[in-house]
Amino acid sequence: MDFNHFKVDGKKKISLADFRTDRDDTFKNKSAEVAFLEKNTAKLDELQARFAADGKAGLLVIVQGMDASGKDGSINAVFSGMNQYGVHVYSYKSPTARELAHDYLWRLHRNVPMRGDITVFNRSYYEDVLIVKVHKLYKQLNILDRAKSPQAIDDRYRQIVDYERYLWENAIVVVKFMLHISKDQQARRFLRRVYDPTKNWKFAISDIIEREFWDDYQNAYEKAVNATSTKIAPWYIVPADDKSFARAVMSQVVVDALEDLDPQFPKMKESAKDELELGRRYLIGEKDAIAEVKELVRKIW
Amino acid sequence: MDFNHFKVDGKKKISLADFRTDRDDTFKNKSAEVAFLEKNTAKLDELQARFAADGKAGLLVIVQGMDASGKDGSINAVFSGMNQYGVHVYSYKSPTARELAHDYLWRLHRNVPMRGDITVFNRSYYEDVLIVKVHKLYKQLNILDRAKSPQAIDDRYRQIVDYERYLWENAIVVVKFMLHISKDQQARRFLRRVYDPTKNWKFAISDIIEREFWDDYQNAYEKAVNATSTKIAPWYIVPADDKSFARAVMSQVVVDALEDLDPQFPKMKESAKDELELGRRYLIGEKDAIAEVKELVRKIW
Repeated sequence: MDFNHFKVDGKKKISLADFRTDRDDTFKNKSAEVAFLEKNTAKLDELQARFAADGKAGLLVIVQGMDASGKDGSINAVFSGMNQYGVHVYSYKSPTARELAHDYLWRLHRNVPMRGDITVFNRSYYEDVLIVKVHKLYKQLNILDRAKSPQAIDDRYRQIVDYERYLWENAIVVVKFMLHISKDQQARRFLRRVYDPTKNWKFAISDIIEREFWDDYQNAYEKAVNATSTKIAPWYIVPADDKSFARAVMSQVVVDALEDLDPQFPKMKESAKDELELGRRYLIGEKDAIAEVKELVRKIW
Repeated sequence: MDFNHFKVDGKKKISLADFRTDRDDTFKNKSAEVAFLEKNTAKLDELQARFAADGKAGLLVIVQGMDASGKDGSINAVFSGMNQYGVHVYSYKSPTARELAHDYLWRLHRNVPMRGDITVFNRSYYEDVLIVKVHKLYKQLNILDRAKSPQAIDDRYRQIVDYERYLWENAIVVVKFMLHISKDQQARRFLRRVYDPTKNWKFAISDIIEREFWDDYQNAYEKAVNATSTKIAPWYIVPADDKSFARAVMSQVVVDALEDLDPQFPKMKESAKDELELGRRYLIGEKDAIAEVKELVRKIW
């Protein structure tokens, strides 16, 4: 199963409109998608354990998408099965005053995974070429002129490409998802938040106001995807009108990214095998082994 | 007074051996150097206040140099006069296990100044192309092969140039000093640590062992300086055999960097002037003003 038709790797310019937002016929039906996700989450649990033990690389998963495109839910569905010790999710909401006083990568770089860890960014530095571009938020910054022009924002595409190459070269693999929904589907999801009393708390009129900028956002996404898709840090434009389909796709891409790295449990050294054997003999009460351990204790302490 | 003859901006390759390590005849004598530093520290105190209030840019000062080149002392001499609220010094010793598990810029980026701040790095990510290169420390890392080859270390020059351009474009100015001492002068300073009982604690045989790699370090410095000197982030090769001369030079370069930015105290808005006047009248006890303030309190709370 591969989803390379959703992958953008910079070889040629894409148009977002050419990418479907609804499920394709990869799976027989919705329950096949759900079953596929389930199989993949089990696989991911096992892969993550190997990835953490191997410790030779980090994995950074970036999830972007319009409001109500299902970012939170899909992150939860795909990553929750793994050992939370080595998996971290960070949500990037509006920056604080302190964060705004720093360079825009600052608040994110500190959360980039160390080797052995998987980190998910729910929104990311891509907001700095999306909402910041659409609403020209840079104009409000107290900053040198050279950093507050439209050109300065466009320079960020190159900065991001440089940054992601730096990460790749330093053994941090970046996987980027854009959850791609239709404008109609967003309306339906917003309406569900209105009609379902248990979902009312999720509704905010500010989401409706942002919806008025739909085309600007789509343009900003298309530009960002085209400008920052590379062989080593491709974008996946995931059809997200159907949640179970989106999650099936995402889980497979993450499985592939980990399997490509082929992580291995560290091999036992010969000396470690001797230690295993000594431990075994001590634990079953062999007198020689107990004496040997006591000797070790005396030497060390 | 300008020290552009110590500046390397990438226009042409330099040879470290062509740069002097002892004072030149810029100043009449040592006390003229001390007086010059004193004048500059006063100037810096005033400039830093304006720089912090302006808040449009950050200043990152990187100080590198061989052991005993005077990094700590010169940082103390040049930066201690300023308001410590807006000035931060970070010393980068051997990385911790946690830091080593991250990309090499990780432990530094978190300390890059926000706008309005001056940050000094005593050693920096340049160690990752100096000691790491000289002793091939990357070989000890548990990391993907692509990140542990000599080529991977040479790639860091480009990564650093990209990074410093990113910082510059985002209003963080980088100034880089290499404190350049002669091998003889290092020996004299080490010997002082041996002979002076109050300095014995500074002595470590490991420094002597590193001295055996003098030429390798000089080569690594020369390569690093040539590969990472740019118009926007130049290196200054500061003659450091004479401490008072080195400090005079450094203080002037920092003064110039701040003056180039021409920081200004924020201008008062008209409405703020009205507030000043109301505050004044309230504080001297004018009844009208007191009533007006009470009215404000009621409105707000």
